[in-house]
Amino acid sequence: MKEKILRINTAKRKSQKDSVPETWQHLGGRGLLACILVDEVPATCEPLGAKNKLIFAPGLMVGHRLSSCDRISIGGKSPLTGGVKEANAGGTTGLAIAQLGIKAIILEDKPINDAWQIIHISAEGVKFESADELIGMGVYETAPHLLEKYGKKVAIALIGQGGEMELSAAGIQNLDKEGIPSRMAGRGGLGALMGSKRIKAIVIDFSGGKKPSIADQPAFNAAKKSYTKALIGHPQTKTYHDYGTASMVNMTSYFGSIPTRGFSEGTFEGAEKISGENMRETLLERGGESNPSHACMPACTIQCSNIYGGEDGKTLVSPLEYETIGLLGSNLGIDDLDTVARLNWELNDLGLDTIEIGAALGVAAQAGLLDWNDGTRALQLVSDIKTGSPLGRILGNGAATTGKVLGVERVPVVKGQAMPAYDPRAIKGTGVTFATSPQGADHTCGLTIRAKIKHTEPEGQAELSRGSQINMAGFDTLGACLFAGFGFAAATGSIAALLNARYGWDVDENILQELGKETLKLERKFNRLAGFTPADDRLPEWMTRETLPPTNAVFDVSDEDLDNVFKW
Amino acid sequence: MKEKILRINTAKRKSQKDSVPETWQHLGGRGLLACILVDEVPATCEPLGAKNKLIFAPGLMVGHRLSSCDRISIGGKSPLTGGVKEANAGGTTGLAIAQLGIKAIILEDKPINDAWQIIHISAEGVKFESADELIGMGVYETAPHLLEKYGKKVAIALIGQGGEMELSAAGIQNLDKEGIPSRMAGRGGLGALMGSKRIKAIVIDFSGGKKPSIADQPAFNAAKKSYTKALIGHPQTKTYHDYGTASMVNMTSYFGSIPTRGFSEGTFEGAEKISGENMRETLLERGGESNPSHACMPACTIQCSNIYGGEDGKTLVSPLEYETIGLLGSNLGIDDLDTVARLNWELNDLGLDTIEIGAALGVAAQAGLLDWNDGTRALQLVSDIKTGSPLGRILGNGAATTGKVLGVERVPVVKGQAMPAYDPRAIKGTGVTFATSPQGADHTCGLTIRAKIKHTEPEGQAELSRGSQINMAGFDTLGACLFAGFGFAAATGSIAALLNARYGWDVDENILQELGKETLKLERKFNRLAGFTPADDRLPEWMTRETLPPTNAVFDVSDEDLDNVFKW
Repeated sequence: MKEKILRINTAKRKSQKDSVPETWQHLGGRGLLACILVDEVPATCEPLGAKNKLIFAPGLMVGHRLSSCDRISIGGKSPLTGGVKEANAGGTTGLAIAQLGIKAIILEDKPINDAWQIIHISAEGVKFESADELIGMGVYETAPHLLEKYGKKVAIALIGQGGEMELSAAGIQNLDKEGIPSRMAGRGGLGALMGSKRIKAIVIDFSGGKKPSIADQPAFNAAKKSYTKALIGHPQTKTYHDYGTASMVNMTSYFGSIPTRGFSEGTFEGAEKISGENMRETLLERGGESNPSHACMPACTIQCSNIYGGEDGKTLVSPLEYETIGLLGSNLGIDDLDTVARLNWELNDLGLDTIEIGAALGVAAQAGLLDWNDGTRALQLVSDIKTGSPLGRILGNGAATTGKVLGVERVPVVKGQAMPAYDPRAIKGTGVTFATSPQGADHTCGLTIRAKIKHTEPEGQAELSRGSQINMAGFDTLGACLFAGFGFAAATGSIAALLNARYGWDVDENILQELGKETLKLERKFNRLAGFTPADDRLPEWMTRETLPPTNAVFDVSDEDLDNVFKW
Repeated sequence: MKEKILRINTAKRKSQKDSVPETWQHLGGRGLLACILVDEVPATCEPLGAKNKLIFAPGLMVGHRLSSCDRISIGGKSPLTGGVKEANAGGTTGLAIAQLGIKAIILEDKPINDAWQIIHISAEGVKFESADELIGMGVYETAPHLLEKYGKKVAIALIGQGGEMELSAAGIQNLDKEGIPSRMAGRGGLGALMGSKRIKAIVIDFSGGKKPSIADQPAFNAAKKSYTKALIGHPQTKTYHDYGTASMVNMTSYFGSIPTRGFSEGTFEGAEKISGENMRETLLERGGESNPSHACMPACTIQCSNIYGGEDGKTLVSPLEYETIGLLGSNLGIDDLDTVARLNWELNDLGLDTIEIGAALGVAAQAGLLDWNDGTRALQLVSDIKTGSPLGRILGNGAATTGKVLGVERVPVVKGQAMPAYDPRAIKGTGVTFATSPQGADHTCGLTIRAKIKHTEPEGQAELSRGSQINMAGFDTLGACLFAGFGFAAATGSIAALLNARYGWDVDENILQELGKETLKLERKFNRLAGFTPADDRLPEWMTRETLPPTNAVFDVSDEDLDNVFKW
């Protein structure tokens, strides 16, 4: 079965299946998104207008329940940054799309009325159904309705009230393997883009689907075995299995780069309380539904995710990730994981990016709208977003808008997108990534914290970031999780072997970097056409002069270095 | 006496007088601002940060009470657009600065505390005094305090609460010849820039000043006489004298380009009621303080300004201009001039740009926050701005921010600055100016409505706009009012004659265009360094597809034409 491009016109409520253009065939996930955007979306169009498109593209490796390699890339022109946007997530959406033989779903146009729709996709075709009864519902209430109606063998991508309100911090939720809407393609406002097309949910029934065809099954099995073994045996796999991404709390604390009270300090006196180690201990103690090691995708062997149960053992939220802990915890001076979990649940339900809202709340605190370590007030402000009040809409449009409206200069954003939980002054390679990534500040676009380098020195950081950005753009094109990289690195040649076996190609081990470079080049082309220049590849000015205790670092990587990141 | 540059450091509260660099000597006003910005302000700096500078530069002809030629240009990097900004005003500020022998005042740095200051400038030097007792006061209350304290022979540039709150729609008010703070350098948020430096007012005591020296007094007198005679004799002078800028209501109505109910129509059923003709009749009838013909600068012979009195003859506001009538009147569906006058007074008092706030209210109406033709609610929303509520801060940051936060797509802005009262779809040459001017959408940067051309045809508009933009950049560099152009055009060679006599130069009649071109080139250079690209030289996408009744025009000047405007 040849894979197809599924085009859905949201104004005419029609769909068609097209063959895959030759220049798209070697791409998937993030790389394919960038290629489609460059080919089909006018870069200067209004992000929430009819000319923008919302695209779902599983990565090249998706569809086979290969550990940590079934991610879905979702993209379009970002309502938050105005540039290229890819956000990826685990869950089952990628798997379902790939198993229906679809290489990408492209949602086009926008209806002129406000009638909300559900798009149902199956082996039989595409149908539109009214979503009227779901409007105003959070994702936790919406998903069970849809599962009840459409059966259990479906993947769902859906938005909460944040997306309905077209807020720039709105993401798109995806079901995890238990059917809980908890895997968010969170960054860059793609939920607003989905809302602008008046689509509440996309239901993908893959009961009539099957694994994508494999050109050389024995070779694929061999490569899979070698990769999986290497991944399971890697020491980091054990760390992430036990402590999840929250293990990062101690690491960023060690380097003095955990965002604290509005990115004003790099260490947090409550770090131990919000650490992965403490979280694991708490969850094991509490029992019940609590689980420190939970897989976000079927067949993932790392299981870095978790189910965070309260004192009664009942789920408070799942998952609770490092980025959320950093932005809604230390960044707000909050040292209580239960409070962070409650904030996380509310934002998940609204379908809002916890990084963006955490940063926005940090800005609001600087404007005097909440005190540090005031979880009750933070929850009130989140509830303001739900009501659509003016203040709620300010916060829901993210940190940059919040800073602009409230008159706060110290806003941690690049290209309008909030920084994840690595203060870039103390981890300068990651700062280079934040500054120069076509996506805006994004921790999944090229972390450098594990490199053996003095992170507060400006020299060498641009090269470090370049390599990391290329690799991550490659992984995102494969549909592979960042942590799959542990396995690929240990099992040399396994990426090429898997792709050759799957597609009948003849690529060598440079393929990851080749895909990464092509992707970055396409993304930068789109941004250039949209009006981005080197002036956009900078950290905010205040981070270049305000020192960050305790390292007292400022961001001092030279503009020249920043401008050379993509000259390879 | 050689003219000097007066530098004032607002953090250290120190000042110094420098000689004028050679490359600045042939410039004044808008051209000089652009040159200083390119030379001294990092284009990517934060507009409200310490690296931005606030500059006051009288035009080249200022200081001699030459009719309509004593304007002050104020500028810096715009808090609204992020690009180059010049806003000019009548009143006495330009005259006072020029008569103290100062070519430009440059306010540098910003204090780290929140202690508000008054800067007092006189022939004796510069002193800082506390402004504590004036904080929170509108300009109408502030000015009398300052006049009481510093005497009558002062010019004052000051901000209201809008500037104190650093709102992007805040302008800088200047006294008119009667000492009323009513001549606003309104556009682009320069009041916020002044507020960021914690300066409430700049008081310029010119009692020890004198007219700038003149190289050839008899030649100057002859040129002045010829220019003044031509100006007085011009038919437009009579029109503007009688009806003021409000005479434009009938003209834009005729062409179907008066902004109506959120730029959704080009004619307004209440146009006659808000016309200049009706206004004149009303003011003559009401008598008292009312005056349809009032000069904004000493010695202006046109007197296009007015004093708008209420039913009891007492001043409601002065002046009431066409732009305010268009944006706060027809754009909000309001056909009652008294209501527009009250809105105008409130916004003047807060020190906010009526164009920007009028456009923002039009956006708020689309979001359902007020009905068309609801002056009471509009006044409430303005009072919200005064309180600094979240909604007030949204509106006070202008139309683009209001649209972003409230989720409204139909926002009439270019480069983040609201469009004045000419719908660009029906007057396409002015649309080209709005799209391409380095200042953002601005009616003083190159109107084309008087050209003998079919305004709804896309062809030829780029050339028309180019010529008009060059001339206007030239006038703004001279310190000449737009309407002074009637006199200059009729008295051929008078600009060169005046400049040669004043400065001992030997320039020919091309000088206006030469100054204009140099200014535009500098401004575009600053914007390019700040990250602007051709993608910023466009009208909003919706104006290229949504037709404007009754002409049913869309904006269809080609991108190629827009990109060629500055290729001369």
